[in-house]
Parts: sequence; C-alpha cells; structure tokens
Amino acid sequence: MSERPPKPPRQERWDRRMELPLAVASVAYLAGYAVRVLARDHLPRLGVDLCVGVVLGAWAIFIADYAVRLRLSGQRPLRFVRTHLVDTVVLLLPLLRPVRMVAIYDRVQRRRGQPHLSLYARVMVYSGLSVSLLGFTAALTVYHHEVDAPGATIVTFGDSVWWACATLATVGYGDVTPVTPIGRVVAVGLMACGLALLGAVTGSFSSWLIQAFTREDEKPGNGEGPRGDPPGAS
Amino acid sequence: MSERPPKPPRQERWDRRMELPLAVASVAYLAGYAVRVLARDHLPRLGVDLCVGVVLGAWAIFIADYAVRLRLSGQRPLRFVRTHLVDTVVLLLPLLRPVRMVAIYDRVQRRRGQPHLSLYARVMVYSGLSVSLLGFTAALTVYHHEVDAPGATIVTFGDSVWWACATLATVGYGDVTPVTPIGRVVAVGLMACGLALLGAVTGSFSSWLIQAFTREDEKPGNGEGPRGDPPGAS
Amino acid sequence: MSERPPKPPRQERWDRRMELPLAVASVAYLAGYAVRVLARDHLPRLGVDLCVGVVLGAWAIFIADYAVRLRLSGQRPLRFVRTHLVDTVVLLLPLLRPVRMVAIYDRVQRRRGQPHLSLYARVMVYSGLSVSLLGFTAALTVYHHEVDAPGATIVTFGDSVWWACATLATVGYGDVTPVTPIGRVVAVGLMACGLALLGAVTGSFSSWLIQAFTREDEKPGNGEGPRGDPPGAS
Amino acid sequence: MSERPPKPPRQERWDRRMELPLAVASVAYLAGYAVRVLARDHLPRLGVDLCVGVVLGAWAIFIADYAVRLRLSGQRPLRFVRTHLVDTVVLLLPLLRPVRMVAIYDRVQRRRGQPHLSLYARVMVYSGLSVSLLGFTAALTVYHHEVDAPGATIVTFGDSVWWACATLATVGYGDVTPVTPIGRVVAVGLMACGLALLGAVTGSFSSWLIQAFTREDEKPGNGEGPRGDPPGAS
Repeated sequence: MSERPPKPPRQERWDRRMELPLAVASVAYLAGYAVRVLARDHLPRLGVDLCVGVVLGAWAIFIADYAVRLRLSGQRPLRFVRTHLVDTVVLLLPLLRPVRMVAIYDRVQRRRGQPHLSLYARVMVYSGLSVSLLGFTAALTVYHHEVDAPGATIVTFGDSVWWACATLATVGYGDVTPVTPIGRVVAVGLMACGLALLGAVTGSFSSWLIQAFTREDEKPGNGEGPRGDPPGAS
Repeated sequence: MSERPPKPPRQERWDRRMELPLAVASVAYLAGYAVRVLARDHLPRLGVDLCVGVVLGAWAIFIADYAVRLRLSGQRPLRFVRTHLVDTVVLLLPLLRPVRMVAIYDRVQRRRGQPHLSLYARVMVYSGLSVSLLGFTAALTVYHHEVDAPGATIVTFGDSVWWACATLATVGYGDVTPVTPIGRVVAVGLMACGLALLGAVTGSFSSWLIQAFTREDEKPGNGEGPRGDPPGAS
Repeated sequence: MSERPPKPPRQERWDRRMELPLAVASVAYLAGYAVRVLARDHLPRLGVDLCVGVVLGAWAIFIADYAVRLRLSGQRPLRFVRTHLVDTVVLLLPLLRPVRMVAIYDRVQRRRGQPHLSLYARVMVYSGLSVSLLGFTAALTVYHHEVDAPGATIVTFGDSVWWACATLATVGYGDVTPVTPIGRVVAVGLMACGLALLGAVTGSFSSWLIQAFTREDEKPGNGEGPRGDPPGAS
Repeated sequence: MSERPPKPPRQERWDRRMELPLAVASVAYLAGYAVRVLARDHLPRLGVDLCVGVVLGAWAIFIADYAVRLRLSGQRPLRFVRTHLVDTVVLLLPLLRPVRMVAIYDRVQRRRGQPHLSLYARVMVYSGLSVSLLGFTAALTVYHHEVDAPGATIVTFGDSVWWACATLATVGYGDVTPVTPIGRVVAVGLMACGLALLGAVTGSFSSWLIQAFTREDEKPGNGEGPRGDPPGAS
C-alpha cells in the first residue's frame, strides 16, 4: 500500500522476461497440487512423486525470482519485504499466485488489440476471475485438510466447492463446514479476500446498471431495455 | 459486454415483430414447466403430455428466432455466439427468458404514457421483478430435482421458495438446503445472478433515501418525512 | 413511487390534526398486541379482552382516518389505493404503522429547535429506528405464530428476537428458524424491508467515515482521529 | 453525533497528557481480561487476583479520566453524558476502549513522518484494525460466558474466534452459536458495530479498485495491472 519508487530499467526487463515462465510455473503449481489432492486414491506411486516434483520445482522458480528481484531493487532485505508485502505473502502461499495471472490475461488481450472493455466490465471480469481462482484454491486446500478429519462434513470435493460458493456469497448454509484448524484458517482467509473482491463485482454491476438506465433516459426515442454495450468510464 | 454494431433495419423490424410471440412463448414455457413440476401427482396422463408439448413448442420458437437473428446479422455463427452470449445462454436455459419480459413491461408502460418512474425507482422495479422471477424459477428447478432425492430437506415447494428467499437475501439459514449436484449448481447460479441484482436494489434504495433526505433539507419549511415521490435522476 | 399532486389545504389540516391521535393509536396497537402475545399465560380473562379491545379500537381509528383521506382527496377509490399503496399496506398490517412514528420523532425534535443532525447521521438514525421497530414487530409476530407449532425451534420471545437480529444482519445462523407458513412469510418480509434499510445505514456510515477522513486530511495540523461531529451534507 | 463546541486549551492539554496512560491502561485491561479468561484453569490463585487487580485498576483510571473531562468541560453532568455518548459507552464497556488505540497508532505513524497512506487505504487500515480488535474482544467475552453453559456449542476459544469471523463476514454457518442471553447480546453488538465497519472496508476497497482501474486507463502505455501504490484522495 505504501508509495513505491519508479522501477529501474533492469528490473523492468526482468519483469518482462519472467512473465511467461512465472505464468507457466503458476499453472504447473496449481495443476500439480490439484492432481495430487483430487486423484490421491487413483494415482500410482510415480504419479504422486511427479506431482510433488512439479510443485516443488515451481516453488523453486518463485523463490529464485524473488531473490533476483530483491537483488535488482538494491534495497535491504527487511525494507524489501515491507515494501513488497503482497509478493512475500504470495511467495509463502504460492496457491494464491495464479490469481495474478488475471493481470496477464488482461495484458495479452490488450496486445492482441481486442476491443477494450469498459471500466466497470473490466473490474467485474478481473474481480470475478480472481474470485473464481481463489474459491477453487480454497476448496482444494480445505478438501485436502478436511477429508480425513474425524467428524468432517466436507467429504467430497463437490462438498468443498459447494461450501466455497456458499461462503463467498456470504450465504453460509452451514450444512457443510470445515472442522479442522487449518480448514478454518483457510476459510477465514477466503472470507476476507473473497468478500472484498465480490463486493467490487457487485458494486461495479450496480453502478453499471444505474449508468445503463441513465444513458437510456437520455435517448428518448430508444425503446430498448438496458442491454447491449455497457457505458464507458468517463 | 463487448461493443456491438448498430442494428440493420431488417433486424430492427424482426425484433419488433417477434416481441409479442416471444413474450407469449416465454410465459407458456414457464407456465408449462411450473404445472408439470407442481401438479405432477395430480395431473392425468394427457395433462403431462400437454405440458411437455407446450414447453417443447416454446423452445422450438426460441430456437427458430435465434436462427433468424443469426441469419439477419450476417455474422459467422461462432462470432455471433460470442457477441450474443446472453442470448445464447437464454436459448439453452429458457427458464431465464421470462426475466427479459421485465423490459417489455417497462416498454409497454412507456407507450401507454404512464408517468415515467424516476431513475432509482426504475432500477428498483426492474431489478426487483427480475429477482422475483429468478427466485421463482430457481425454486421450481430445485424442487423438481430435490423432491425425490434421498436425504433431501427440500420436500415441498414451500420449502423450496423459503430456501430461495433465504438464499437471495444471503441469510442462508441452512435449515433446508439442496443436496443433489443439479440443485447445488442451480443454487450457485441463483447466488451469482441474484446477489448482483439484489445489490442493485439495495444500492438504489440507499441512494434514493439519501437523495430524499437531501431534498428535504433544501425545503426548510417542509415538516414532512421522506415520503411521497422519489427524486428524479441527476 | 408515482408522482403525487400537491395536497389541498383541507387535507393538510387533517394531516396535522390527526398526527397525535394516530401516533397514540399506533403505540396503543403495538402495546396491546405485545402484551397479548408476551403475557398470554399470565393474563387474566379481563386483560386479554382489554388488549383485544385496544387493538381493535386502534384499527378502527386507522380505518376511519383512511376513509377521511380518501374522501378529502376527491379521487376514485381504486385510483386512491394505487397512488397510496404504502398507506393501504399499512392499513391492512397496522403493526408496520409505528415505523412511521420515526418521522414524527424527527419533526418534534426539529420543532424544539434541537441541533439539526447532519445528512448521514439523520439517515442512520431514521433507518436504524425503523429497523429496530420492524425487527421487534417481526419478532413479536413470529413468536405469536411459532410458539405452539409442532417442531418449532423458536420457543421463547428471546429466541425470536435473536432470530430477528441474525436475520436483519443477514448472518442467518439457522439455529432457530420459523417453520410455520405465516412465520416464514413474515421472515421474508423482514428480509426484504430490513435489508434495504440496513443497507442504507451501512452505506451512510461508510460515506460518513470516508468524509470524516477526507475532512481530517484537509486540516494538516489536526492530530485528532475521526471522532467528533460528523460532516454536514453537501 | 451532535455538534460539539471547540475544545478549551486546558482540555486539549489534558487530552495530550493522558494519551499514553490511557493507551497503556487499555492494553492492560484487555490483556488482564484475556489472561483471566483464557488461562483460567492453569492460573494459580495469585495469578487470578493479579489479573482482576489489573482490570479494576485500569477501570479506575478510565473513571478518573472521565471525571476530569467532565470537570474541565464545565457542562452539567447530564448534558456531558449526552454530548459524549461514545465516551460514556466506552467507560461502561472498557473492552471496547482498545479500538480507540487505532487512532493513536495512526497519529504516531504520522509524527514519525511515515509515508502518508492514501484516503481509502487509511479507511481500510483503520476499519480493519478496529474490526479485528472488536472481533477478538467479542470472541473473548462470548467464550467467557458460553464455556460453562449447558448445551453450549462454543467450547474452546478457537470455536469462539471461528464464530466471530463467520459472524463478522455475515456468513453465519451456525455450526457454533452462542446459547446464553449474555452471549447473544454480545453477538448482536458484534453484528451491529462490525458490519458497519466491515462495510466501510469493503466499500473503500471497491472504490480503490475502481480508481486503480481508472488511473490505469489514463496511462495508455502502461502494461501493468492495478498493483503498486493506491491512488490518493480526490
């Protein structure tokens, strides 16, 4: 959240060069973890080892990237950690890393000259994708830690996804809930991050709807409901 | 969400001509489905066949309309599907179609020269009606799929409506919850669509209330509370 | 919600003259109903009759007032009902009437020359009081209809108040929930009205907080946190 | 909420002089209460007496401070209570007092010349810290009153924290809920205060996100996602 100095050119170059490898490593990490968790009973010994290898390899890439960035920044380690809090958290919990890929998707779309989405639509797409990835990751982690716990109500991955959706929407039926300490910590994290992002989606949708109705008011000959292209920012 | 070119005149004419038939087909579809689901134990063989016939007939009309629109647009099918995502989803899930009727109601009111509602009131009415239709449709579908499931807690249509209301308000008591996969997928859809719309209702009401209080402040001789006509936009 | 013509002077005079009697009748109605519901096991025969008498008497006053207003408006009955929807609903459900007393409280405060509250504070007080009255009324009605129902979880008035609070905050634990059809209809009404009002409270508080922080920014020598008087409107 | 006259210089001086002692007393009160509640089974007789002594001593400081403020204000007691409602509530429920320390933290940061946070970031930090303290305090109090109640579902402090998080996020699973009257009153207080504060966090985050996206739009050459420093106010 604190002010950050403009990046030196070498750091910019590093950022650009590492974009693709980091994205691939993020997907590999998530995929390796997902296969390890979801297919644990059907996986041969070799498959488990492969998954663990992929996960650890991806993590190694993240750590190396963090170290290079720390070096290039020329800051003392403690100060670097303080000014890059989000990066540090993501280093320790790499499951959160794929959420950053939404930014890359947005950038690729822009380079390909795709029609630029309006402000509210972009906030909705960005937050919506982040929420989906967060929910999937949380469902995966909670399932991993709950499935063997005594007295657990989350016994299939479907239960876990159902629980994550009910939590993100703040509905919270309570028919399935985590009972292990780790599951509950993940749940609290999901509430905290997810609700803020979902609030952004809802708020943007609401603003977009009101803008759509306002625009419609200004075109008196228009007999159309508020469908079609959402209004731009301005 | 993406930008759409202005409609050619032939498409405009088609839109206007199909308005009434599509509205009738939407109501017929919903009514046929509702009768089929709610009266299934009391309906003679012929009644069931009639309901299924009405539902399939309405669906055929939707498909024909979609095909004509695709033809008139002059676009390639894939591109048409991408630029008309909402229409495509509604084609596959025609139960969502009656929600569009709210727009028609609004247009009819306007043609009859009814007093124009203020911006916030219109957002509230539009979103409120959409939410009601969505909730009714979801309650119907969930009841249809849950009623015979083992271990189901939603055993009457009343339970299903009660569940839909508690879900839309994000209260989520959890005394009755869907247990089948299809029921849960419908529930997640209801949360996603419903919450955004309900957020629009709440946000508009809140903005309207603040405007009403502001307006009252500017009339110092007014001893009236914020009742009466809501303030217009701007 | 629709536009309303300015009131003729005779109606204005009637409004002013009936203010106090209607307020007294509202309180009497709510008090009579509350005593009847809460003390039903400890009340002698005479007490029950008295409560019922007070309730019916207050209702008669409301009906008479509605009839006079209809007469004074010079409108046809059907049109009057349509343009005074809120009044009509309140006539049929007089338990909602005390909510209007919040407006009277506000007016009395103003006549006594009390320091005028800022815009957001007023929205918060008005909505907060309305929500409290609504919640109390709903808790009363639900308790009345649930207490003797088979399988009810709301068995004391405390349970009912606890349920109403959890519902209004959209927390919805689900440890106590209404099971009778009437109780559930009241619950849905409480969700609908209550959430909108509570959204207004939350939204106003949020706006007030941001304004307080903004104001603080503009006074650089001020070492005070955002306590003290909330900023005015505009 | 009402307008407050500017503070006389003697009161200002008292405020500044008492800042540190009050902060220390607040922490001592909370710590004493926490140790007393959490370690009750492992604490020797002397430890319990020490905790109670610390709590009562801190309370005495709060009462003395309140009395001096009342004296310095030169107002009649009743009027002072009415114009300092928050201070009076905090005097009676000193567990809420540490929440005020967030303001002190902010002031200390500013004196040390730390980079000033942007408006939205400050609202988020302030509200987030307040919510955390409130939740911790509520979890502590509820655990204290529930742990020995018959039929309680909150049997460990972990359960209590889990319940407080689910309540603040309005998720409300209902797997653990307070059953004692005092526990439920605390829960209602937590809902009321917490939701408003959390609404401020969510609203600020949403506004910040939209501002970040807007700013990004204005820098067309920028290929970066909305990370980095949040935009300032205005």
